[in-house]
Amino acid sequence: MKYAQLGTRGSEIPVVMHDGKVYDLRSITDQIDGVFLQGGIETVADLLAADELPLLHGADSLRVGSPIARPSAIICIGMNYAAHAAEAGSAPPEHMVIFNKHPNTLSGPNDDVVIPPGSVKTDWEVELGLVVGKPASRLASPEVSLDHIAGFVTVNDLSERAWQLELSGAQWGKGKSAPGFAPVGPWLVTTDCIDASNLRLRSWVNGEPRQDSKTSDMIFDPSHIVWELSQYMNLEPGDLILTGTPEGVALSGKFAFIQDGDVVEIEVEGLGKQKQMYVPFTTKGVEYAV
Amino acid sequence: MKYAQLGTRGSEIPVVMHDGKVYDLRSITDQIDGVFLQGGIETVADLLAADELPLLHGADSLRVGSPIARPSAIICIGMNYAAHAAEAGSAPPEHMVIFNKHPNTLSGPNDDVVIPPGSVKTDWEVELGLVVGKPASRLASPEVSLDHIAGFVTVNDLSERAWQLELSGAQWGKGKSAPGFAPVGPWLVTTDCIDASNLRLRSWVNGEPRQDSKTSDMIFDPSHIVWELSQYMNLEPGDLILTGTPEGVALSGKFAFIQDGDVVEIEVEGLGKQKQMYVPFTTKGVEYAV
Repeated sequence: MKYAQLGTRGSEIPVVMHDGKVYDLRSITDQIDGVFLQGGIETVADLLAADELPLLHGADSLRVGSPIARPSAIICIGMNYAAHAAEAGSAPPEHMVIFNKHPNTLSGPNDDVVIPPGSVKTDWEVELGLVVGKPASRLASPEVSLDHIAGFVTVNDLSERAWQLELSGAQWGKGKSAPGFAPVGPWLVTTDCIDASNLRLRSWVNGEPRQDSKTSDMIFDPSHIVWELSQYMNLEPGDLILTGTPEGVALSGKFAFIQDGDVVEIEVEGLGKQKQMYVPFTTKGVEYAV
Repeated sequence: MKYAQLGTRGSEIPVVMHDGKVYDLRSITDQIDGVFLQGGIETVADLLAADELPLLHGADSLRVGSPIARPSAIICIGMNYAAHAAEAGSAPPEHMVIFNKHPNTLSGPNDDVVIPPGSVKTDWEVELGLVVGKPASRLASPEVSLDHIAGFVTVNDLSERAWQLELSGAQWGKGKSAPGFAPVGPWLVTTDCIDASNLRLRSWVNGEPRQDSKTSDMIFDPSHIVWELSQYMNLEPGDLILTGTPEGVALSGKFAFIQDGDVVEIEVEGLGKQKQMYVPFTTKGVEYAV
């Protein structure tokens, strides 16, 4: 099943898409979050089978928000494609590398992104994201990980490379948490509807191709990632995990960093495409994301 | 004013301490969180002045929880004391170093801490913690930071050093987020009641002294930290920021790492003392913190 959240920022309507129709889930949940994901997916399947969900009319005219509500944590896997590690000047990691984005970076897939004031190295990263569906604590093996994953999403793990690498003392989080730096969606596709082991990931800047790889090139696959993370921390329903980006980003030196007015598109096969306009910072204010 | 949260895990009662008495805040808020901190401190002062808050009887017999509810983010400053950087084998950082703990690591100051299965390098870190009280986005200068801080707390930034440094690919988060790895409290002391610029920080293991420094030894002080972080991300009311630890931890090689049965005490002058028993992992389960 494909889930989405549609409408103005902060007032998104949770929906499920089925057979070309869009069904309104507000009778079941206020949002697609960790609470809903524990049991809600089965409830929705039952209600769809019984034809007991109302249609949402006019869905096409609504803004597309992130298909998941703000998570309690956004955990990122670094250098998880060998060719990207090489373009960043690193050897492939021997151990899984993790870092975080602030959960308030979450944004809709097509929302404008403000280039942070002072940024000269804002960079795109198409990634397969996974959403935790059940608590995961010290899982016995990667074979059981899929039971703890609700579904998959397209994510742009935006980065300010100077802040991440030059001003950071080598801990990357400083360049990963600017407002709006985690566009997610358009859809959350549940694990029963997609095999994430060999999906094509692509990105474009102003229509020109940049990244073009497959999730099968990952060093640590989603099942390994969830299993290993669960040894070090308790994962919770709704936690968002970004599985790393393939080669073809500006950090490589082959392409320019993002400029005002650029349009970035990213797509993970089967999980939908994002298209963002990059705009200059104009008004001072705090932006909270949903 | 000193705030605390007392009672069983997940059902703590928010209180304020004043003139040796403990007042029950449940008529105002369910918990000490980011929503409460925006205006609630002023409301409590008014109600105390008007003698309109009820006393909480039997407070002494209640468990002491974290004085703040689970934050949306726990942001840590690394290597912020020159002598600690040296004992960890590093030069003092030229730039402020940040990393994260999962927000579900939050625990009460005196709760038992489970040594994670497989851990051989669990290590203590006494730290001054600060709690954000107002949104902070691209602050103009460190001089205005204090207006965005609600208060200060004692925090033990527990770390598994093998996971943090040997199995991590050099990104530290892997060793920072085991369940219960962020004991906070006992009190949140508001900024009008404490000057955090020169507080003594100490730790002990089984009664033997370990760390003993002053917050005046920090490389980047709390005002700088909040100002600089606000350039890179939007800070939110309730966010917890750990300001780094001074020298005297096991990573130095001078002391043993924490063993089953050890008792660790930490104290920040004016912010209260913690005392934790370290216990082996016995039953498999997911532990969520409040």
